[in-house]
Amino acid sequence: MKKPKTETPSSDRKQRAQQTLGRLTNLASQTLSALEQGQNPTLSIPIRALSNVSFDEQRRMIQLGDRAQAREFFNKSMAKKFMQTFLVMDSVKELLESNKTTSIRDLFYMTKHTIKGTKENTFDSQDESDPIIEDVEVAADSLREELHLFANPKGRVVGTLTIEDCGDEIDLARLGSGGYAIPSIVEDFTIRFKKCDAEFVLVVEKFAVWARLNEDKYWRSAKCILVTTEGQGARGARRLIQRLSSELKLPVYVLVDADPWGLYIYSVIKQGSISLAFESMRLALPGARFIGMSTYDYQEFKLPEDVKIDMQATDIARAKEMLAYPWFAHKQWQREISAMIEMGFKMELEAFSKRGISFITEEYIPKKLRDKDWLQ
Amino acid sequence: MKKPKTETPSSDRKQRAQQTLGRLTNLASQTLSALEQGQNPTLSIPIRALSNVSFDEQRRMIQLGDRAQAREFFNKSMAKKFMQTFLVMDSVKELLESNKTTSIRDLFYMTKHTIKGTKENTFDSQDESDPIIEDVEVAADSLREELHLFANPKGRVVGTLTIEDCGDEIDLARLGSGGYAIPSIVEDFTIRFKKCDAEFVLVVEKFAVWARLNEDKYWRSAKCILVTTEGQGARGARRLIQRLSSELKLPVYVLVDADPWGLYIYSVIKQGSISLAFESMRLALPGARFIGMSTYDYQEFKLPEDVKIDMQATDIARAKEMLAYPWFAHKQWQREISAMIEMGFKMELEAFSKRGISFITEEYIPKKLRDKDWLQ
Repeated sequence: MKKPKTETPSSDRKQRAQQTLGRLTNLASQTLSALEQGQNPTLSIPIRALSNVSFDEQRRMIQLGDRAQAREFFNKSMAKKFMQTFLVMDSVKELLESNKTTSIRDLFYMTKHTIKGTKENTFDSQDESDPIIEDVEVAADSLREELHLFANPKGRVVGTLTIEDCGDEIDLARLGSGGYAIPSIVEDFTIRFKKCDAEFVLVVEKFAVWARLNEDKYWRSAKCILVTTEGQGARGARRLIQRLSSELKLPVYVLVDADPWGLYIYSVIKQGSISLAFESMRLALPGARFIGMSTYDYQEFKLPEDVKIDMQATDIARAKEMLAYPWFAHKQWQREISAMIEMGFKMELEAFSKRGISFITEEYIPKKLRDKDWLQ
Repeated sequence: MKKPKTETPSSDRKQRAQQTLGRLTNLASQTLSALEQGQNPTLSIPIRALSNVSFDEQRRMIQLGDRAQAREFFNKSMAKKFMQTFLVMDSVKELLESNKTTSIRDLFYMTKHTIKGTKENTFDSQDESDPIIEDVEVAADSLREELHLFANPKGRVVGTLTIEDCGDEIDLARLGSGGYAIPSIVEDFTIRFKKCDAEFVLVVEKFAVWARLNEDKYWRSAKCILVTTEGQGARGARRLIQRLSSELKLPVYVLVDADPWGLYIYSVIKQGSISLAFESMRLALPGARFIGMSTYDYQEFKLPEDVKIDMQATDIARAKEMLAYPWFAHKQWQREISAMIEMGFKMELEAFSKRGISFITEEYIPKKLRDKDWLQ
């Protein structure tokens, strides 16, 4: 039993909010003093584009480079964005001061208005405010969650772990068939790990497979924490998985369909994504292990012919792109992805049901773990 | 405090499975005896098409009519479907006997195989097996959940209610920011209501609004059960809301965006849908009250001009369709929907944030309930 620290999250949350407020205030002060000195106020915004993103071989994750853009107030093409940046910062300040969180859609409404005496809106659509939020994240070196902002979450978890969420102690081993719904903000000022009796984390892409494993109470016999991302992992789920791994020192195994989309879901959990490269340090998990579903499982687990789904041209193109990713350069990965292309078929996790309803619980996963049959 | 009955769900679940098995066995016996008597075995499958769906004025819900199709074994155009129906029933029997549940995708895999000596598949895609599942539902007068089958669920709930889910007692007032993830199967053989200290159910379409209300602990001060369907309600969420209403005798208030899509979400919760007309008795909730967001809220709550979103041609067409729905025939509804068309704008629930982050919690909902300002 590991017993992590137990301060109350509520005081922590206020303290963290103060720190974030401090960083925002700094940016504002710099702007004000530039104005007072008759200079052109400028914000330095790191560039979040493919041209400034690379794979960090050392850290084994996708990261943002050093290039930044100077956003100037006295510049016709930048003045609007400059104003928008401060509008977003102002609303975030309101959130932090009132100790409340809200959605990025809500923030759009909070900051949107028609400028007096004109027909000009501060923001016309959320497509304009979302990138400004990211600007503030990187400029103030604060995560979106630290700005008290969130998007819709996804994902469920059960297992041999007790957490504290906003003061409520929740035993994830006592949540029936439904499970704990992963919230948007899972930072340690909201969620704390209390008692952990798990030896690993199992992440399954598909709800149906999670439900099978939960119904069989796999997590109890195997002593694990069972997470489903319900498709591509949302930020909250990815962050929670990373925290489980780093703070509780648990290995993480990922189970996805044997197709390029499944590999991509795994890849994002592991190395991060290009669009959220500035968040990799907090979201990526280079140690995440791929336990399946592998193309080789077809033979290994004697699956019948009719579980095969033909690879389409787009699948093959996508798989070939993956072959070229630096994080899949290892020969084991090259072998795995090449096999998918050469054998020409995909498979879904549901295919194991051909061997019996609980084959995945009773045979497949135990054998994979026993044989240490995974890729990393 | 209401205290409903407390038998253990696990024995109930087995008993219910036996009942369902009995109905399936009956269908099979009838087929066998027809064969023994040299007759053409026939299944009577109620027709699930618009032509056999109508609005039941008495019950105030969309219902399936009496028309049925005879599915014959010795009929070239029906033999395949006849075979498929029995394949599905066979797999369902396996599920019921082993007391396990699975996804409709999984059932497709369980029943799919290539017929020996041919290149013919029993099922080519899930598009073929899903309708057969519905056939079995209506033919055996058993809900999909009673067949131990499910699709991906959606939705979260918190509030002043304690439930039992597969033997685990869960206090919905102690689930932090995440909440209880609504499972796919919420029948009383899985989920029981234990201690209820709530006076009503509040259903919000949007996760972000649910999160706002949960962060403000609205459900605690208002003594309610707070549900989000996270968009269009999945079967599990709809069924849970109906059970909360009927078994705990709680009024249900629904809060959606002020647009045709929001009205449709409300309408499905209330009257059911055409595609699931055969399930209305179990899913529809004619007593569900619409507390907003109404087009009239724009003036009533002094919202600024820039929360208005122009109605598009498709929105107007959709709203006009709704004007013609028999369940929106009441003059109050005609007034509401006509106002949306005539004023020409939509609004989202997030619009209330223009009046303050917690305006919806502290002003809007309390006033609506106090003034009994809802439509039904």
